[in-house]
Amino acid sequence: MKSTSACLTCHVQQAQRILNKFIDNEEEKWVILSKILNDLSKTKYGLKPIDISEEMYTKIETYLKINDIFYYEKKKSNEIALKLYDTFKLRILESSDPLYEAAKLAVSGNLVDFGAMPDSLGFLISKVSEIWNEPFSIDDFEDFKFKLLNSNTLLYLVDNAGEIVFDKLFIDIMKTFNKNLHIAVAVKGKPIINDATLEDAKQIEIDRFAKIIDTGLKTPGTSISKATEEFRKAFFEYEIVLSKGQGNFEGLSDEKRENLYFALVAKCDVISKFIGVEKNSKIFMNSKRIFQD
Amino acid sequence: MKSTSACLTCHVQQAQRILNKFIDNEEEKWVILSKILNDLSKTKYGLKPIDISEEMYTKIETYLKINDIFYYEKKKSNEIALKLYDTFKLRILESSDPLYEAAKLAVSGNLVDFGAMPDSLGFLISKVSEIWNEPFSIDDFEDFKFKLLNSNTLLYLVDNAGEIVFDKLFIDIMKTFNKNLHIAVAVKGKPIINDATLEDAKQIEIDRFAKIIDTGLKTPGTSISKATEEFRKAFFEYEIVLSKGQGNFEGLSDEKRENLYFALVAKCDVISKFIGVEKNSKIFMNSKRIFQD
Repeated sequence: MKSTSACLTCHVQQAQRILNKFIDNEEEKWVILSKILNDLSKTKYGLKPIDISEEMYTKIETYLKINDIFYYEKKKSNEIALKLYDTFKLRILESSDPLYEAAKLAVSGNLVDFGAMPDSLGFLISKVSEIWNEPFSIDDFEDFKFKLLNSNTLLYLVDNAGEIVFDKLFIDIMKTFNKNLHIAVAVKGKPIINDATLEDAKQIEIDRFAKIIDTGLKTPGTSISKATEEFRKAFFEYEIVLSKGQGNFEGLSDEKRENLYFALVAKCDVISKFIGVEKNSKIFMNSKRIFQD
Repeated sequence: MKSTSACLTCHVQQAQRILNKFIDNEEEKWVILSKILNDLSKTKYGLKPIDISEEMYTKIETYLKINDIFYYEKKKSNEIALKLYDTFKLRILESSDPLYEAAKLAVSGNLVDFGAMPDSLGFLISKVSEIWNEPFSIDDFEDFKFKLLNSNTLLYLVDNAGEIVFDKLFIDIMKTFNKNLHIAVAVKGKPIINDATLEDAKQIEIDRFAKIIDTGLKTPGTSISKATEEFRKAFFEYEIVLSKGQGNFEGLSDEKRENLYFALVAKCDVISKFIGVEKNSKIFMNSKRIFQD
């Protein structure tokens, strides 16, 4: 998925929010933002948004001398979401379709995104349960469920910290429906925005249900060519791949493999327009839809 | 009033909206936005926001080969607002305090601003009558009214097309309360965003009530040092100066002259914080407040 000019503007807004978070002095903010504008002005047309992010966030980290911009927020999102785990699990198990309920919750959890969303952590988490019941605008869940119940391996590409707790719950439920299913969870290799890393996966103990694979990536989404050999192998060998979030979608929307599913909230105009849905729609789609038009 | 880094980001967003308006091809938009990011990255700290606007809009006009970006919107805003003139005048005259009602309407009209506001023209005009009744968050109108009834000359610095119709109505009402009052209306010298120019002043026939003075400016606000001699003379010689809008406020907030009043809607975070009010507050203030703190 190619970036548009709106992605440049969005990156300027993201940079502004980060500067507001770390710097009080107005002149200092001005100087760093000017550098970022200059960096962004040199970005070539044709890149994916996640490639622009990788470059810009790496530069901001250098300018600010900070190497994990959302470290505290990631820890906190995991903690807050973990507190909801048991209650939410009970609600899911008591529902008429636990797998579907768990999937809807995991996708709603995709709201916890400090790149695309300017809101506070508390607000985002409360919003997750608010939109939990909303239906998917594109709903290929029945197709996914059939594959799930008839496969042995699933690679689950997680997106953000906090959200990853709802992914763990979805995985927990999936394993009760298919006890033979081996699941691997792919995390980012280095801190980028609030994307979940190995540290987050361990904090929430997702390894109780799944093997963890390090993609090695610092792109806020999956870029196969830049990923580790271990990840690349898993991506092509696992029977099902479930990719969460906008960043992973941006990175993989051109990939043509069977049983690749995208589950996300379409949080920006560029992605919504590309998929052909209203902004803020919940999506659970088989990737083959992309190549049907 | 000095720009902050948020003003740079706001200018990027304004540029994006203009590119969306005039260009369909994504790569073409990208190329022009990259140039604008590069231009903005070179802006020195310490300028007023209106100086950044003048430079950026001049560059965009060159890149797009268009010399009046909001030409049609300006014409249209004037037409739509003119249709409301008689009804609104009747409502004002039937009220218990016509001068105050007319002032509140003129300030509400400041919403019609294509720089600060991303909304459509129809929406903005309907919003004007919606906020008409809201009180001023800073209210020095009684003080202004006293001066008005005891002076012979008033210089009225208008802001935007469309809004200028509500200014005309306010002037119309002022003249019924002080028949000896000579009013001059200062307009921009060249097209900049949707600021009112001589052409707008003539379209709405404001010259039936006031002399028109051309500031010669292309800044979206009043910059005394860059203005015409005629304007500068009037600014210091007229007994009262009423300055409408954010841009004129940015340009004149450092000026220390008696009986200078600012009337505006504080539409952005930077201005609201500077004045010390909530965003979207209606203000009618004597400039001496600025130097009291």
